[in-house]
Amino acid sequence: MRDEGRDMTHFGFGESPFSVHPKLCDAFAGSVRHKSYLPGLGLPQLRENIAAYYQKHADYDFSAARIAVGPGSKELIYHLLYVLEGPVILPAPSWVSYAPQAILHGRAIHFVRTKRQDGYRMSAAALAAALAGIHAPQKILIINSPGNPTGQVYNREELKALAAVCCKHNVIVISDEIYAQTDFTAPMSPGLAAYCPQQVLITAGLSKAYGAGGWRLGFAAAAHDSLLPVFNALAVVISETFSCVCAPLQYAACLAYSDDEEIKSHIRACATAHAAVVFHTARRLRECGLYCADGQGGFYLFPNFDDFGEKLRARGIMTAADLASVLLDECAIAALPADDFGLPTQELALRFAPMDYDGDGLLHAIAKSGGDPAAVIPAHAATFIPRVVAGCETIKTMAR
Amino acid sequence: MRDEGRDMTHFGFGESPFSVHPKLCDAFAGSVRHKSYLPGLGLPQLRENIAAYYQKHADYDFSAARIAVGPGSKELIYHLLYVLEGPVILPAPSWVSYAPQAILHGRAIHFVRTKRQDGYRMSAAALAAALAGIHAPQKILIINSPGNPTGQVYNREELKALAAVCCKHNVIVISDEIYAQTDFTAPMSPGLAAYCPQQVLITAGLSKAYGAGGWRLGFAAAAHDSLLPVFNALAVVISETFSCVCAPLQYAACLAYSDDEEIKSHIRACATAHAAVVFHTARRLRECGLYCADGQGGFYLFPNFDDFGEKLRARGIMTAADLASVLLDECAIAALPADDFGLPTQELALRFAPMDYDGDGLLHAIAKSGGDPAAVIPAHAATFIPRVVAGCETIKTMAR
Repeated sequence: MRDEGRDMTHFGFGESPFSVHPKLCDAFAGSVRHKSYLPGLGLPQLRENIAAYYQKHADYDFSAARIAVGPGSKELIYHLLYVLEGPVILPAPSWVSYAPQAILHGRAIHFVRTKRQDGYRMSAAALAAALAGIHAPQKILIINSPGNPTGQVYNREELKALAAVCCKHNVIVISDEIYAQTDFTAPMSPGLAAYCPQQVLITAGLSKAYGAGGWRLGFAAAAHDSLLPVFNALAVVISETFSCVCAPLQYAACLAYSDDEEIKSHIRACATAHAAVVFHTARRLRECGLYCADGQGGFYLFPNFDDFGEKLRARGIMTAADLASVLLDECAIAALPADDFGLPTQELALRFAPMDYDGDGLLHAIAKSGGDPAAVIPAHAATFIPRVVAGCETIKTMAR
Repeated sequence: MRDEGRDMTHFGFGESPFSVHPKLCDAFAGSVRHKSYLPGLGLPQLRENIAAYYQKHADYDFSAARIAVGPGSKELIYHLLYVLEGPVILPAPSWVSYAPQAILHGRAIHFVRTKRQDGYRMSAAALAAALAGIHAPQKILIINSPGNPTGQVYNREELKALAAVCCKHNVIVISDEIYAQTDFTAPMSPGLAAYCPQQVLITAGLSKAYGAGGWRLGFAAAAHDSLLPVFNALAVVISETFSCVCAPLQYAACLAYSDDEEIKSHIRACATAHAAVVFHTARRLRECGLYCADGQGGFYLFPNFDDFGEKLRARGIMTAADLASVLLDECAIAALPADDFGLPTQELALRFAPMDYDGDGLLHAIAKSGGDPAAVIPAHAATFIPRVVAGCETIKTMAR
């Protein structure tokens, strides 16, 4: 649509609108002469830095010996799903790639329905109920907090309860923590590894908080020595697939995980600025009459249109896919329908990625106004996040 | 051993001893601010450049629409083995990773024995004989020319005969052409795609000729539209694994495949310098009484020690693995045994990667002496390739 010169609101794709910190760019550019193959699991210094960073900020018992670097955490999740035994349990909704990855490996998939009033977070009770119907010595659960598409963060009580269920039923958890450094209230969202490390493999990387999606560097970590057999199997797959991650990029990533104060404060500033955008968007969507939980971290909102169900059905909009299609055609708003995330298509929910703004410009305005995002958004929303505002206005008109 | 301060000859690992051309390093360093995700199949300009480069230099009917960029060609071969149907046929010897990759995908593997007097190249007759015993509607063959570990290049007559067999028996070929630009006599070794494009998928990349193994960029290309279903399946796997290759690196690779005269002449100079080292090494090994075909391209030699079989067995050396182990322990020479490449371990052959020298220093000496590698090697072998010479001397002593 943009190629055709049409103005549109792109809520469809979760890419950080912020530039990578210049120090990281410089470190990358300064490392391009490193042209040798690196060890398959990664540059030793990078693995050490990741371990130290997470020990300090997430209070995990991380060890460099249990960390593997990959060309994005998605690839590492794919290989983990290969080396782990058992059927795959996914909350519905959950990220679009988990189910296709499991299908590519021929794995059985069990979706656990969640409810909008719970912010689409999966309860321990719902997980336990699903496990009662699954008869396998080991199960795999993928959990993502802060969540895509939900924007929700599991709190300590919820994690503790989920951990107990996972231990009891021998569930190995892939804890996808790619958004952990974009939690809106803390520098790092701790995950399940704090409660049942012997069950948990963590994945994360540079793509989200550091704004470096196109660079492609992530890692997988076994939270406990008991998972070393899984980790060693992953190492075998790595040696037969990508061999090692782009060497110059690994040198740059050492700095990303070096606890550098400037870089840490930059990624906090990005997370806080985006939080203001998300809060503002959620509030406006609620003003339209939509059901929309406040975002707690990550990039997304997952508004639910069910309260308009009758009105929408009268217009022939029966499914989330219909809704996404009408929003695109009539309102020039791109968003993803609920069924892309494992929900029944009758669930009239959409994932909004309100990232369609000039991140660097917004950061600059916030800094100029004294550093408080709330002082800039919502007062100057139309100036700094015009496409986000236009999208909300269009939905408001449509909802009337 | 080197960490312990011991001098040793490392013939074990096939990594280019030459630096990446400075123009490519500069292009990479200048592109680090590209931080957005790129299309899964690769940067359109890069795919166009690769297509044009191979159309010009290999005379393939390449199309950008059938080229996929990946984090090394190894990963792309792995995914091709997933999406293709059928058992996997491998010449013995062939590269160490093909068989493990096939095993990871649960594929049946059939090795086709080759003979030392054929330079360990697989004949069409041997392939046809093997196919007679394989009952599957489609078969997969991986062929690698210039070859690892053989150092051999299939000539036009051999390729034509192999192509006829592949067409007749519905064999889909993964033609691993990662060494094509290191042919000792021509800028590019043409492969099977020139003779049966409708059966051939080609893989190649920056690792060998460009000396950029640690950068991790390769590509896979379907040589004909009839393979689009396979190519499209590959695209699906890419979107669920690495998503896209490191964006700044893709911008740099555009230059690698831009037909830049300086870069082309640099990679020719590297190939020609290494050819002189390989010829010299092969000659010295033959002087020791070993059976060793001259290298024709790529990085390797594959000397055979069978003529010393009785003498070696008297020393308790029964297998190639024993031989490699004795060479390492007693002579401080690292090499890989024949059974790593699919040959029976009784075949007393080893892969030598005579790369253990200062490539940039050698290039400099050749340029200073007027550009003829033969004027520098063998006359000044001890100066420019001391470890290679030391390795050959040790073998000579041992063979007495």
